[in-house]
Amino acid sequence: MNWLESISVGLLGLGTVGSGVVKIIEDHQDKLIHLIGCPVKVKKILVQNTNKKRDVHVEPSQLTTNVHEVIEDPDIDVIIEVMGGIEQTREYLLEALNRKKHVVTANKDLMAVYGTELLKKATDNGCDLFYEASVAGGIPILRTLVDGLASDRITKMMGIVNGTTNFILTKMSKYGTPYEEVLKEAQRLGYAEADPTSDVEGLDAARKMAILARLGFSMEVDLEDVEVKGITDITQEDIDYSKRLGYTMKLIGIAHRSGDKIEVSVQPALLPDHHPLASVQDEYNAVYVYGEAVGETMFYGPGAGSLPTATAVVSDLVGVLKNMRLGVNGRSAVAPQYQKQLKAPEEIFAQYFLRIHVEDQVGAFSKITSLFSDRGVSFEKILQLPLKNKDLAEIVIVTHKASKKDFEEILMELRDLQVVKEVKSTYRVEGNGLL
Amino acid sequence: MNWLESISVGLLGLGTVGSGVVKIIEDHQDKLIHLIGCPVKVKKILVQNTNKKRDVHVEPSQLTTNVHEVIEDPDIDVIIEVMGGIEQTREYLLEALNRKKHVVTANKDLMAVYGTELLKKATDNGCDLFYEASVAGGIPILRTLVDGLASDRITKMMGIVNGTTNFILTKMSKYGTPYEEVLKEAQRLGYAEADPTSDVEGLDAARKMAILARLGFSMEVDLEDVEVKGITDITQEDIDYSKRLGYTMKLIGIAHRSGDKIEVSVQPALLPDHHPLASVQDEYNAVYVYGEAVGETMFYGPGAGSLPTATAVVSDLVGVLKNMRLGVNGRSAVAPQYQKQLKAPEEIFAQYFLRIHVEDQVGAFSKITSLFSDRGVSFEKILQLPLKNKDLAEIVIVTHKASKKDFEEILMELRDLQVVKEVKSTYRVEGNGLL
Repeated sequence: MNWLESISVGLLGLGTVGSGVVKIIEDHQDKLIHLIGCPVKVKKILVQNTNKKRDVHVEPSQLTTNVHEVIEDPDIDVIIEVMGGIEQTREYLLEALNRKKHVVTANKDLMAVYGTELLKKATDNGCDLFYEASVAGGIPILRTLVDGLASDRITKMMGIVNGTTNFILTKMSKYGTPYEEVLKEAQRLGYAEADPTSDVEGLDAARKMAILARLGFSMEVDLEDVEVKGITDITQEDIDYSKRLGYTMKLIGIAHRSGDKIEVSVQPALLPDHHPLASVQDEYNAVYVYGEAVGETMFYGPGAGSLPTATAVVSDLVGVLKNMRLGVNGRSAVAPQYQKQLKAPEEIFAQYFLRIHVEDQVGAFSKITSLFSDRGVSFEKILQLPLKNKDLAEIVIVTHKASKKDFEEILMELRDLQVVKEVKSTYRVEGNGLL
Repeated sequence: MNWLESISVGLLGLGTVGSGVVKIIEDHQDKLIHLIGCPVKVKKILVQNTNKKRDVHVEPSQLTTNVHEVIEDPDIDVIIEVMGGIEQTREYLLEALNRKKHVVTANKDLMAVYGTELLKKATDNGCDLFYEASVAGGIPILRTLVDGLASDRITKMMGIVNGTTNFILTKMSKYGTPYEEVLKEAQRLGYAEADPTSDVEGLDAARKMAILARLGFSMEVDLEDVEVKGITDITQEDIDYSKRLGYTMKLIGIAHRSGDKIEVSVQPALLPDHHPLASVQDEYNAVYVYGEAVGETMFYGPGAGSLPTATAVVSDLVGVLKNMRLGVNGRSAVAPQYQKQLKAPEEIFAQYFLRIHVEDQVGAFSKITSLFSDRGVSFEKILQLPLKNKDLAEIVIVTHKASKKDFEEILMELRDLQVVKEVKSTYRVEGNGLL
């Protein structure tokens, strides 16, 4: 590798993010030369179709449909993976790392599932493996956890880490637009995929939370450890009640450490309107981080998109190249400090929102409330309203902190009560008080 | 230096931040050992009075009133400077760097004035000089500019980088409390100094903006290049009109690049209520960064305080120690890429808020508005209201974009108009549209 000439990188994938990477490397060549000391060129790009018309300028000679031409090219020092996918992509990257190529990836699915294996392979081969773009696109949150808050003990992270669902909930909340209609708008604007399952069911957010929890708590966290609930059951009634009670409904990833144990989940939750995350609108992302010493911080920005994500990728590339210049690649990954310990349901505490329909008869209310008081769960807020044209009343409750175990048992008992017609909805309520 | 034993650091100063540093190093010893591979101890601390009672536990043998015992101690590898002050402190740190000690400082005054000299001295001696804590305490913003957004071209930064003034403006705005009263409350709570001049006149914010502009634009920026106006002239009327027009009044540091030229300033400005900075309340800080590729990002957190600031200091210390482990100290500072080029007044564009008292007579309004239209400055909003018990009217104008030169000339002409009784106030209006 001759620093006076140039650095060659190989690109796997030339979709929206890949095109952004090509564009940024081209546009910011002067800055890259200033930072790194030599030009950076994209030598080979793996694509599915070499004849497709592209938004960015690439020479036909750069394109190939044969992955080996990229990961086996001896001139190429760094592989940038922006093709997506899991199993096949894992094999390519393991192969690249075995050939001592550094890797930058934007692939959250891959890192959530095979992150540990890939990072170990990178360290074993003296290679860097950076993946800032995999969580919250344009927000440099992984670096912040690893370097910026290196000296602190992070106890809670809450993230709006999926732009699609935040866009949908913002529109439902602001304009009362029904879910199906906003989803279509999101698809039209390119904020949602044709098959939106991974977004709206919370799986995409869960992958990002697994990655965040791993780094923030320095603990091995698997995707299966993340409890997930999506936004498809949220009704306009729930959103309206939230507002009325001073809350904003968001799809929130929560990673919480108490003592040595952690919990990680993704679910729609109610945040007080004054909480910093509550004002994160539309397709924007934000990660709220609470550290014992630093207190409350929040990092806000675009969570997706061609150029924001590509910025994170190229910033990682700059990190790899600076390390190459210093001769210290493959030494920044730190193995987890702690053994995985997950909280049991009786150790997970939250406030809860609950909306139920009950028969409008004498004593119904006290039957319900006694279920809560029997378990020592008290109320922060209660609304009771008659329902039109029915012998039913609607009761909305916000509890004080209760264990997940207690709350779920209360729910089961409520469903068994004759006066309870239906439990319409339940949500966690977060962000009241610091933790 | 023996990695199996421990790293010794020397501390200059044991005030609120210094005490926080001692506490964090003590509390997080396990994490530090995990990250660095050996314990970290504070060997010597420079204090003014060795007998003073302290909030943190320190051995009498750690304390000294003689700076040479700290910066000349051959066991000490890193000097942490949290004593404040400029001239004397500069001398100590130059001496420490000459002796090949790495330096971590929280001193914005020093870095704003002598940053370039000190960084050069550090590089010449193969030493690290880190100063994350000097801007926005607990928010790792400098790292974000240098690493996280390394591949982007930053064109605008707006910062709420002074907690005292944000606290005061939040209270004035929320509760209508008069300036003097809120200032006293801030002093009582420890958010403002006994002599609040540096905060309320915008000087503290100016120092931080000089540091941010230097890093964000990769250009030498001196403190004298920052135009400064403080908050002492803000009246409740101005705040009320802001609200009425959908704006929030904040003390904002603005660093803006257009082409190759920059402007840096600190002043009270009006932000649209929906702007991410507008919801930053009380003593919190936030830095909004616009990059050409990444778009809008914002970094939020505590701007001061013992533990948040100490977190930033110790995270910098971890950075120094990781570099020691890798043998790459003194190689992360990057010289500015660009020559300083400041915008002339005719190249600085902003919207302006203007409140004037005029004689309530026929034709007054058109005389005033024609001054604007003569220079091609149009209006976004105008309010005209009669004033009680006077033959005067109050006119409030928000202009569309105008150059600073045009606006200042219009102001002079307004003051010369006979119908204009008084120009009560003018403010920049920021954050409408992306740039």
